[in-house]
Amino acid sequence: MAVLVVGSVALDSVETPFGKADNALGGSGTFFAASASHLTSVQLVGVVGSDYPMDQLRALESRGVDLSGVEQVAGSSFRWAGRYPHDLNSPETLDTQLGVFASFDPKIPERFQNPEFLFLANIDPELQLNVLKQVTNRPKMIACDTMNFWISSKRDQLVELLGHVDLVTLNDGEARQLTGTNNLVTAAKTILSYGPKYVIIKKGEHGALLFSEGKVFFAPAYPLETLFDPTGAGDSFAGGFIGYLAKTGDLSEENLRRAVIYGSAMGSFAVEKFSITRLMEVDKSDIESRVAEFKKLVEFEQEVNV
Amino acid sequence: MAVLVVGSVALDSVETPFGKADNALGGSGTFFAASASHLTSVQLVGVVGSDYPMDQLRALESRGVDLSGVEQVAGSSFRWAGRYPHDLNSPETLDTQLGVFASFDPKIPERFQNPEFLFLANIDPELQLNVLKQVTNRPKMIACDTMNFWISSKRDQLVELLGHVDLVTLNDGEARQLTGTNNLVTAAKTILSYGPKYVIIKKGEHGALLFSEGKVFFAPAYPLETLFDPTGAGDSFAGGFIGYLAKTGDLSEENLRRAVIYGSAMGSFAVEKFSITRLMEVDKSDIESRVAEFKKLVEFEQEVNV
Repeated sequence: MAVLVVGSVALDSVETPFGKADNALGGSGTFFAASASHLTSVQLVGVVGSDYPMDQLRALESRGVDLSGVEQVAGSSFRWAGRYPHDLNSPETLDTQLGVFASFDPKIPERFQNPEFLFLANIDPELQLNVLKQVTNRPKMIACDTMNFWISSKRDQLVELLGHVDLVTLNDGEARQLTGTNNLVTAAKTILSYGPKYVIIKKGEHGALLFSEGKVFFAPAYPLETLFDPTGAGDSFAGGFIGYLAKTGDLSEENLRRAVIYGSAMGSFAVEKFSITRLMEVDKSDIESRVAEFKKLVEFEQEVNV
Repeated sequence: MAVLVVGSVALDSVETPFGKADNALGGSGTFFAASASHLTSVQLVGVVGSDYPMDQLRALESRGVDLSGVEQVAGSSFRWAGRYPHDLNSPETLDTQLGVFASFDPKIPERFQNPEFLFLANIDPELQLNVLKQVTNRPKMIACDTMNFWISSKRDQLVELLGHVDLVTLNDGEARQLTGTNNLVTAAKTILSYGPKYVIIKKGEHGALLFSEGKVFFAPAYPLETLFDPTGAGDSFAGGFIGYLAKTGDLSEENLRRAVIYGSAMGSFAVEKFSITRLMEVDKSDIESRVAEFKKLVEFEQEVNV
């Protein structure tokens, strides 16, 4: 089944303790598409400026990403520049230039208006709501992401959006900010009360938690010695997660758990190199091997009658 | 099999956002013993002052903890006072009075000199080395803990100690400090090169990692809504871990993984109330239920031939 993703398509300039990339492919839609395309076909909707290196982006087409919803308009592309400290925690933003993204008002092409899976990547919640209005049949699953900026500036619209989605992904800091509570279990319960059936709280190097009514699943982050650039890890996680659900078409809790592991695997690849480089290199057998390593990482047998 | 633990027996005054405890039982040896005693018999060696509430400590005897190695001498007991912030991360130390602990020089009673399992809780590495000299037969397993203070003030002695132990537990910050590297996988490899066969890196609310040559096991922290006071979580973890190994006498990698889960379960109980209160309340069925919940928390089936 196909996934429609609406998000940013940007150019990132990133500095980490290991090197520097200038104007490399970035943005939530780009990372999501590069990741999900390993598992299913992807339709990407976004906007870029006249300066965007479309030839580089078109590499995604060879993986089955339909780029016909990426509009190229006069002006500058969305550019972000950031620097990660030695511990690779939160980056310092050096520069943000929204460019044509500032007036992004996603128009979903008619042929994309009936998606089976829809991912609303991190954009203004008002735009996320507008996308929902353009979708003709209810997708099997609608998932969304967000960020601290929208939680503080457009909280009401975000909470309204959460009443319309099946699943939301957000990081631990955002979950705390949205709910005003430090305890993540309590935060997840509060977010579930806004409407979604599932909440995924991403904790970066500390893994991810999938919450549903009365249930919780935990997936560790893969213990990488080669962590290189954390940019895009969350969107790559979402791409692996939704991509796996779309591939299998199975929304059982058991399959959602597996999907979280696929998400974690794709996130772990994304951070091994700058931009989407590593996501474009790995193949099916790399992905299956890493999923198997996740299994080994947490596996233990409970002894009965100790 | 019995476990010998050498550590501090203290009085803690702790303030958390949820309440305050004054002069409650604390110390690494106390938490370890309260935890391990659910799984095996424990011999505790430590020192307290004439002011120590021995009647309260004796509650441990009903669980099979042999307190005859806890020396009571003239002077004040080791007292620590701390306050946890709203997010329950690292406490602010308000006061530390070493009292009789300042001149602690553990003498292992002859009847304890042949332990099958030995845990050297967080004390001066020189004293930990002295304890080793008093042990007549090589225990099946020697494990130790440490802290930032010893890493900076007695690094050489600590590294010497690591050449004599089978396993070391330390938290993520301490692992980074000891090795001068941010990446925990690299840090664990470096620590293994100092001698131990196993390294456990404790990440508090983010779980624990068990490293051995070329292998890693991850156990999450239990997602608690009732996290109350983190004091003693690490020593309770160690008590559950070593206690389970001593109970089963099995040092296979499979059993070490299970032991990490028992450690995580005991740590998760410890933080539900002040001091060792919760550790003294829980019973075998509570522990087995929590271990089963850990299993459910991480369980997923890998699909073959996707």
